[in-house]
Formats: sequence, structure tokens, C-alpha cells
Amino acid sequence: MLDKTDTHLEALLRRRKPGYSLEAPFYTDPDIFASDLDLIFGRHWIYVGVEPDVAEPGDAMVIDIGKTSVIITRNDDNEVRAFHNVCRHRGARVLQDYKTSVGNLVCRYHAWTYDLDGKLLFAEHMGKDFDAGCHGLKPVHIRSLEGLLFICLSDDPPADFDDMAARMAPYLAPHDLKNAKVAFESELIEPGNWKLVMENNRECYHCAGNHPELTVPLFAYGFGFAPEELDDMGRLEAQRYADLVKASHGEWESCGFPSQMIEHLDDMVTGFRTERLPLDGAGESHTGDTRAACRKLLGAINDPRHGALHFWTQPNSWHHFMSDHVVTFSAIPLDAERTLVRTKWLVHKDAVEGVDYDIANLTAVWQATNVQDAELVGLCQEGARSPAYEPGPYSPHTEMLVEKFCNWYVGRMRAQGAR
Amino acid sequence: MLDKTDTHLEALLRRRKPGYSLEAPFYTDPDIFASDLDLIFGRHWIYVGVEPDVAEPGDAMVIDIGKTSVIITRNDDNEVRAFHNVCRHRGARVLQDYKTSVGNLVCRYHAWTYDLDGKLLFAEHMGKDFDAGCHGLKPVHIRSLEGLLFICLSDDPPADFDDMAARMAPYLAPHDLKNAKVAFESELIEPGNWKLVMENNRECYHCAGNHPELTVPLFAYGFGFAPEELDDMGRLEAQRYADLVKASHGEWESCGFPSQMIEHLDDMVTGFRTERLPLDGAGESHTGDTRAACRKLLGAINDPRHGALHFWTQPNSWHHFMSDHVVTFSAIPLDAERTLVRTKWLVHKDAVEGVDYDIANLTAVWQATNVQDAELVGLCQEGARSPAYEPGPYSPHTEMLVEKFCNWYVGRMRAQGAR
Amino acid sequence: MLDKTDTHLEALLRRRKPGYSLEAPFYTDPDIFASDLDLIFGRHWIYVGVEPDVAEPGDAMVIDIGKTSVIITRNDDNEVRAFHNVCRHRGARVLQDYKTSVGNLVCRYHAWTYDLDGKLLFAEHMGKDFDAGCHGLKPVHIRSLEGLLFICLSDDPPADFDDMAARMAPYLAPHDLKNAKVAFESELIEPGNWKLVMENNRECYHCAGNHPELTVPLFAYGFGFAPEELDDMGRLEAQRYADLVKASHGEWESCGFPSQMIEHLDDMVTGFRTERLPLDGAGESHTGDTRAACRKLLGAINDPRHGALHFWTQPNSWHHFMSDHVVTFSAIPLDAERTLVRTKWLVHKDAVEGVDYDIANLTAVWQATNVQDAELVGLCQEGARSPAYEPGPYSPHTEMLVEKFCNWYVGRMRAQGAR
Repeated sequence: MLDKTDTHLEALLRRRKPGYSLEAPFYTDPDIFASDLDLIFGRHWIYVGVEPDVAEPGDAMVIDIGKTSVIITRNDDNEVRAFHNVCRHRGARVLQDYKTSVGNLVCRYHAWTYDLDGKLLFAEHMGKDFDAGCHGLKPVHIRSLEGLLFICLSDDPPADFDDMAARMAPYLAPHDLKNAKVAFESELIEPGNWKLVMENNRECYHCAGNHPELTVPLFAYGFGFAPEELDDMGRLEAQRYADLVKASHGEWESCGFPSQMIEHLDDMVTGFRTERLPLDGAGESHTGDTRAACRKLLGAINDPRHGALHFWTQPNSWHHFMSDHVVTFSAIPLDAERTLVRTKWLVHKDAVEGVDYDIANLTAVWQATNVQDAELVGLCQEGARSPAYEPGPYSPHTEMLVEKFCNWYVGRMRAQGAR
Repeated sequence: MLDKTDTHLEALLRRRKPGYSLEAPFYTDPDIFASDLDLIFGRHWIYVGVEPDVAEPGDAMVIDIGKTSVIITRNDDNEVRAFHNVCRHRGARVLQDYKTSVGNLVCRYHAWTYDLDGKLLFAEHMGKDFDAGCHGLKPVHIRSLEGLLFICLSDDPPADFDDMAARMAPYLAPHDLKNAKVAFESELIEPGNWKLVMENNRECYHCAGNHPELTVPLFAYGFGFAPEELDDMGRLEAQRYADLVKASHGEWESCGFPSQMIEHLDDMVTGFRTERLPLDGAGESHTGDTRAACRKLLGAINDPRHGALHFWTQPNSWHHFMSDHVVTFSAIPLDAERTLVRTKWLVHKDAVEGVDYDIANLTAVWQATNVQDAELVGLCQEGARSPAYEPGPYSPHTEMLVEKFCNWYVGRMRAQGAR
Repeated sequence: MLDKTDTHLEALLRRRKPGYSLEAPFYTDPDIFASDLDLIFGRHWIYVGVEPDVAEPGDAMVIDIGKTSVIITRNDDNEVRAFHNVCRHRGARVLQDYKTSVGNLVCRYHAWTYDLDGKLLFAEHMGKDFDAGCHGLKPVHIRSLEGLLFICLSDDPPADFDDMAARMAPYLAPHDLKNAKVAFESELIEPGNWKLVMENNRECYHCAGNHPELTVPLFAYGFGFAPEELDDMGRLEAQRYADLVKASHGEWESCGFPSQMIEHLDDMVTGFRTERLPLDGAGESHTGDTRAACRKLLGAINDPRHGALHFWTQPNSWHHFMSDHVVTFSAIPLDAERTLVRTKWLVHKDAVEGVDYDIANLTAVWQATNVQDAELVGLCQEGARSPAYEPGPYSPHTEMLVEKFCNWYVGRMRAQGAR
């Protein structure tokens, strides 16, 4: 029915049309999905969780990315470490549970025992010629950016993580994530390719029609609009919002909260973007009443009215840092048509549930928004399966960050020699 | 264990042995299934439903064929139209429900809004250079044959639909399907390849042993037998049946019900067959007591004793038109080993449920028969998976129409250059 | 992340490293799985059940191996026969249930009827030119080894089955399996490749840490240990066990129970191993209290203290013959990552349930052990999926039989010209 064209990855990457959504195979083809896992998720810094996930020595968390399973743990020197979750004997998965706490890392099959630095301490019956020193757990690169944990499965991780870290640390530091705790976390499997999940995250064109909870704290003008479509009233409101952003930035920066936008979404290997933006209503937090959900504020913050610091990273995360809590999201591809989104809500580690915060109130906005987004992503996945699908135009006013996500993706795939 | 032979589609088509069932890959191979979707379901007229499915302007029905999703709707000029169910912006599926009623066709994602002719009426934030005229929903060819709806996904549909329509219209017209309503419909996923579903439909050799309900209204001799196996009594009964058919045809045709067989199952691109045949017992309908299931008859019919007009089309439908109701079936391939069969029972649109007809009585025979057929199709699918399967001989007396289905399929695949 | 190496089957077989577990594709690749089905399960003797499964003429059992379905039945001359479970007409599966009892083998679809020797007795409507003699059910090779049933799907089965049978018959005969009955059977789908199931069966290194029930009757020293790791106490116990084996063999052989090890695990096409070993505690049976679970002993055995005769065959079975009961296991591959394990517990055919034996007591040890093994196999399957997996070293003291299983597998694949 449609023209048969070359659907090899290399050709698809070469003929990508700027300003338009990607061709369908990028969302549906299992072979391209395998390349995504290999070239994107296998060779870039992937956001996987927070230091409070492994707060104490011996705490361990298992993260699966594609077919790779990784143990993240904290050793007795309080350092966060990461290892491949594969026993060096018969290849059994060492840890099964998502989160656990251990003394050593012990394989259930034949009791091979590794310490928290991955060193093989004990293996029975292997005979006197066996060299335990060659059979430690294989390490994985891991970095903490003010408590946000990124791993890289490659032996040669992108070096510009340091640049991002240097730029971002001052923005994140006031929220003191390392001294926060995970108050709640959710897992949601969205029925779509990971790139559709990310594209959905990178625009708010769809918010007005689909996110009644989220649009309470978010300003309508905060995420783009077509200026020529505004009437006089609209133009006035847009100007008021622009003035508010400018005034807020000045105020916040003067008291130690960096706020100006930094954007390197498609011009760095480790692409990212940040900006601190005011919130509507009481202006305090992503909650149903726009007020702080946790009485005890993060770090040394003493005023809840610092808006929301947004932090987006390529290829798989977004984060909202408020004065009272942090919401942080990772997207993990499961197959060409399914993506796991993990959401964590963090509050000060000394905040007391039921006294300082209420879980339902803390999580209401994003629990609802996640479910709505999952439905939208599913509609796009269903559409992309159709031979009638063809790339459509992005709005030049509200979908610029979607375009930059695609730029980054296509650029990185090309740079890795995708074929 | 078996000889390894060339299992490429082209070779399989070339060496097809007349008079025998197809080789196993035609029933099991996902690649051949993909070719079936492309070359058969993508390039021929596919039966998908009836005009009463979209009785009023704004009524819409979603039909999925393979990966293609199609919206069938009725516009404000009372014309039935079909469109690809894919938004031209980000590719989201526009309608989700099987049947619905709408004012316009609105994509949920960013509220792009199309009218019932597919024209893009509204798209926010797209800027002043955006050309809405280039972004209407993509149309799909659709034709109504006296109320039976056929679509063709190709840009260049087979032209001989008109020949079929010209021949069939007089047969179908007395049943006035456009003024009927869907009293009940069922969906059944049969656990077999769509060709096994069709082959099962094209013979009644299996009826005596498997369809106790259906063989009440159907004459045993109506669907073929081996004459040399008849004893004297059998020969007498067969002759009586032949006389009855001849007499009935004369009577029915004289009062405006064309009845003679027309058969173009394997010599037209749009293959079909029809014949009006007498029914056993009271001779009125496909019911448990062989009497009409609906008191109000179809169209202007005033005598329920007009037997059953059978209408079969390649590649995917069969229909029984009686005086009181119509049963109509479409087979839609889901994957190499599963097929959706949709069955609809239609009565006069003014008939009143509970007064003129009872759903259980109306649907009993074919509900039971469908389930029985699904089991039989499943047994063949299981057998076809075995390396020990080899094509078996069709009965020259009872499986001629199965043979013609295979002829049509093999011929069409070759004609489309299947490789 | 890892070196990309040639993952073609031929290359993988060629570079197999002795003493180490296999490379990951052997456990995960669907193409290698297909080769396993073809070259291993399609061309070797596969253990499928016991004569008591089809105790009477007309009893039938359906065994599915890969895509092949086989009927095993007993004809009126009391001979066990096997046929492909595919009707020669339209290819329908003839028998659906796992076990049934029939007069003839009748296909449900069109009532084609075969006798218990596979001969086509009846087929309606086929016309006078039809040759029923050419349309019998296709036979499958089947052999009984003292009641253990092995089939071979190849037209040319390995001839050395006779050698194995000649060696094994004296070991098995005293347990008189033909006059036993299946007291209980279980089916468990283990979440791993069939080779991981077999490797798990071929060592007891994992028993101490995972099988609390099984290690009651089994001696810790019976399945290998590293001598240099023993302390003085350990060395004494190991010596005691060795003395016990020697003494037991002498005693058992003198009263007609062959006991010496025979091992041809990797030097015969039909690889096998046997040995009779003492049991711990009361020394009678694989039960929670180490005592016989069935009061009526097998065959003419009159003393329950004959230990356990172990019998392992390549590629897919293991068996424990005790004085009171037999436990027998077959592993049937379902796909690259799932394996069906069928376990049958047999007692004397005249033993009475509730009087002579209790099902819960009879089956407790192996029901528990099977579930534990399934979990362990699942851990290895999960590990093998990881790109970080690499073959690990087998213990030279406790995993020799795993190594021999791999030797046999790799050797047979090479011998069949796997590519």
C-alpha cells in the first residue's frame, strides 16, 4: 500500500526529516530496539535511582536494563558500587529481589560468596588450582550526581558526565538529596517504545487536554505556545508569566538557588537541560493544592516558595526538585513496545509519615499524570504499528524539546555507527 | 527426519499439488502470514461489516486488519466513509472503541480535530506556516454491496468488484440489509491460520460428525457426497433432494428471488459464489426448529419459506440470507495461528426484541456451530505444526470448494509476485 | 560492551572450552534451540514414559516433543506402538488428551478411522480411486527397556540402543517395572533451557544448600567433594562412605542386584550411566524418613534395603529405582527458555493406595526437590541472558557429570553436522 523504502537502520537515520516525528520502525522494530539497547543504553550514562535507595552499607538494589542485570550496593566504606548480577561459576543471577540488604553477595546455587566490593571470598570444591582472584563479580561504572545515580554499561563511559555534573551540582545541592529518603515509589509499564515515553515527557502541548491534576501547579504558559494564536488577553497573561519567571529567577538566585536555564539536550553526549520555574497557586509544590506536601523541607531550605527545579537527561530521565520533595523518574526499555517507568518521591530523611507528610497527598499529582501519560503513549504505539503512519510535524512552539530528543537520539546512533 | 525442501514462498506456490491441502508453512510460517496480510488482505476487497453497523451520521466502527486500523463512519450526507485510524500529527490512534458515535474525529493526544470526511478542522500551536489541507486523515477505499461493506487497503483496488456487485445485487436486494439492524454480534478467536478457518467454511464433509445443531436445518445432501457409496435408499433420497432444489429454484425465481448458483470462486480476482438452497423441516431458517426466528420478515418478504441464500467471498466472508434474518461472518487474521471470526445476526430494523424475536433462539445454531468449528480449526493447526504433516487429498465429492479456495489463494499470491 | 564474536552454532561448537559451562547462546538462542530439537531430540532415543502408562490394549498416551506430536498406544497383540498424531486427510491432530483409552484411532474432523496398528480402516466420500493403503498413520520408532519407553523420531535411530539395553536390563529387571503402576505423576515447567535442567540434574554440589528433603536419604559424600578441603573428621567420614559402598555392592550383587557403576555418558551415541548406591538413615528409599513408602515391594524383592539404583540417560532422563518404588523423570524442551519435567512415581501394580502406600509420603521428597531445582534453573537462565555472562569453571570434584553431559551434547551436535 505504501512505498516500500529501505528500512535499514542506517538508511532511516540518514533520511530523518528534521521537525518531524521518527519513522515507524524506530518505535516498532525489534532489531532497532536491540540497537537502541546496545548503542544508547549500553554506551551512555543511564539514570537508575538515588543514593537513598541504598542508604546503608549492605543495602542492595537490582536494576535490569535490557538483558543486563546490575547490582547496586553500598560497601562498608560507604561507597556506592555496581556489579553485573551474574555469578562467575554457573552464571546464576545472584540477587533476585529489587531491594534487599545483605552481608555479602552470595549466589544461592552453590554458595559462591562475594564481598561488597565484588571480590570472591569463598567457593567450595573448586580444587587447589582454582584462582579465586580471577572470579570476582564484574564491575559496572557508576556515578552519583548529588545523590542521583547514573550507571554506564560500557567499558568506556562518556567523559562529559563530569561537565554535566559540574554545571548541575549547584542547582541540585540545596535540595540535599543524599539526606532524603524514598517516601514512595511506583512502577508503571507503559505500552509503548521508550522513545515515545521520552517524547511524551518532552512537551506539554498535551497537558491541557489530558492532565487535569498536573495543570493545577503548572502554569499554562510555562511549556510553550504559538504567539500568533494569542488574543489580547492571552498576550497579557503570557507577558505576566514571563515577568514572573524573570523576577523569580532574580530572587531565587540571590538566596543561593541557581535558576537560569541550561540547555545541552542535543549538543552533548550526556545531554541535559535544567531550569527553575515558578508554580501556580500557592507556588510551593506539585500537589493538588499547590502547597508543600511535606512540612519538613529538604536540606536547609526554610521557605517552600522556590518553585520547581526541572532536570531532564538524555536518554531516560526527568526530575522535579521542589522545596519539600523531589519526584524523580527513570524510563527503562523492556521491549520494542513496552517501557518501565519508575517514579520515586523523596522527602527529608527525618520527616515522619503521617506527621510531616501524607503519602496520598504527596503522590497524587504524578500518580494520576503517569497513568494518563501511559495511555497516550499507548495510542501512539498503536498508531505507529499501522502501515498508514507517517512522520508528522512537531509544533515549532511547543515541541522543540521533542525535536531535540530526536536530534540527540539520531545523532548518537549515527555517532555509534548504527547500521 | 523429513526431506528438507525449499520452503521459500515462491517455491511452495510453484509446487502446490492440486487436489491436496497446502504445505504446512502456509499455515504456520510468520513470514508467509506477513505476505498474506500484504498481498491478500492488503490488495483485495475485504468484507468487514454491514451498513447497519454505522446506521446514523457520526456512527463509527474501528476495524483492525493486521497492523492497519481503519475507521468506518457515516458522514452528514449519509455516505459511508473509511479512513486510516492514525492522527497525522504524532501518529496516535484516533478512535479506540470498536463502535462509537462522534461529532468530529478528535485525537485525544493534542486535540487535532477532523470532520467526518477526514478533513483537518483544528490543530493548535502549529504556527502560521502549517498547511492543514495536507494533514487530513488518509482515506481508505470502501464499497457497499446492498449493505455489505467491503474495504480495500490498496490504492488500486481490484476493478471486478463491480462485476460481482452487478451479479449479486438482485440476489441480495429482497433481503433489504440496509434496513436491517444488528440484533447480536459475537467475536470468536479461532486458534488457527485464517486459511484453515476458510477451508473449514468451504465444506460440510465435517458437518454430520460435528454440527448437531446446524444439520437440523441443512439437508445432508446439500453439500456433496460420493455417489458410488450410496445404497439404494441413499440414491433415492439424493434424487429427491435434487428434485426439491430444482422445484424450489423455479418457484422462488418466479416471485423475484434469484436462486441459481453463480460460481466464480477461482476465476475472478474478487472471487465469490452464491446459491439459494432449500432448508429441511419447516424450511424457514437456520434455527433449532427450522422456523423463522423473527416474526417480522426482512424487506418486503411476506413468506418465510424462501430457503437460505448463501453468499461466499474470497478471501474472508460467508453469509446466509434467510427470510427473517441474515447471519454474516468475517474472518480477520490476527497472526499465523489465530483468526478473529466476527458473526452478526441481523433482523428487520423495526423488529422488537422480546416481541418479534428472541436473541437466544436467533443465535443458537451458529453460536454452537462457530465454537465447534473453532475446535476443528485448532486441531488442524496443531497438526500442521508437526514435521510429520504432509498435504492430504481432498474429497472430489465434498471438498471441491476447499480446493477452489486454495486455487484462488495460490493464484492470487502468484499474480502479486509473492516471493 | 563485550567483544562481538562469531555466534554461529558451528563456531560456538568449535571453540567450546572443556571444563567450563557453555556459552550463553546455547541456553538462549531460539535458532540453536531449533537445532537442538532437530539434531538432538529428532535423532536420538528420547525417554518418554513407562509401559504402565499404556497398560492395556487401546490405552493411548500423547507425547509432544517440539512441534512433533506422537501417539503411544498398545495394540491388541499387547505390543506398544507409536505413531505421528496427524491425520493423513486434512492434518488434524487425532488425539488431544494426554492419556485416553480407545477402540480405534478416529480423527474427529471427518471421521477417518485407523486401527491400533495405524492402518486406515475407513474414510468416507473419497471416491473409488482413493488408496487407503497409502494413508495409514506414520509410524515412530519405539523401544521398551524393561518397561522404560524410548522413542526416536528419526527414520534411522542410533543402533547402540541395543548395547545400552543389554547392559542395563540386568540392573533394571529385579524392579519389574512392567508390573508396576503409576501411582502419581506431576508436570512442572522449569523456566530454563533444557540443557540447564540436565546440568542441574547431573551434580549434587548444589544439594546441601538447596535440597533439605533430598539430603536426608542421600549421603553427602555420594556425589563428589574436593578431598583437599576435608579436615580429619571429614576424611574419616568419606572413607567410611567408600567402605559402605564397597560392602553394599558386594552384598547386593551376591543376591542378584547388579550394582557396579557403568558409565558411557560421553562415549556412546546413546549415552548413559548407572550405579546402585546406599542410602542414609534406614537406607530404604527416597522418603522423608528414609523408609520404604510402599509396603508391597516391587517384583520379587523381599528386603527394602537395596539402596537406590540410579540410571541417567542422554539427553533427557534420570531414574531412581528403589525396592519399594521407582521415580522416573523426563525433560522435554518447550522453547529456548522453558522445559517440561514429567515425574512419575511407580509402585507394584497390586499395591493399594491408602493401605500399602500414601501418595503424600511417596512423593514428598521429589515434589519438593523438583520445585527447588526449577528455581535454580530459572536463576541460571536469567544469568545466561546477560551480556556479562561468560562460561564459568566446573568443579573437577563435583561437576564431572555436568562436563560429560556437555561433552556428549557438543559431540553429538558436531557429529550431526550442526551449522
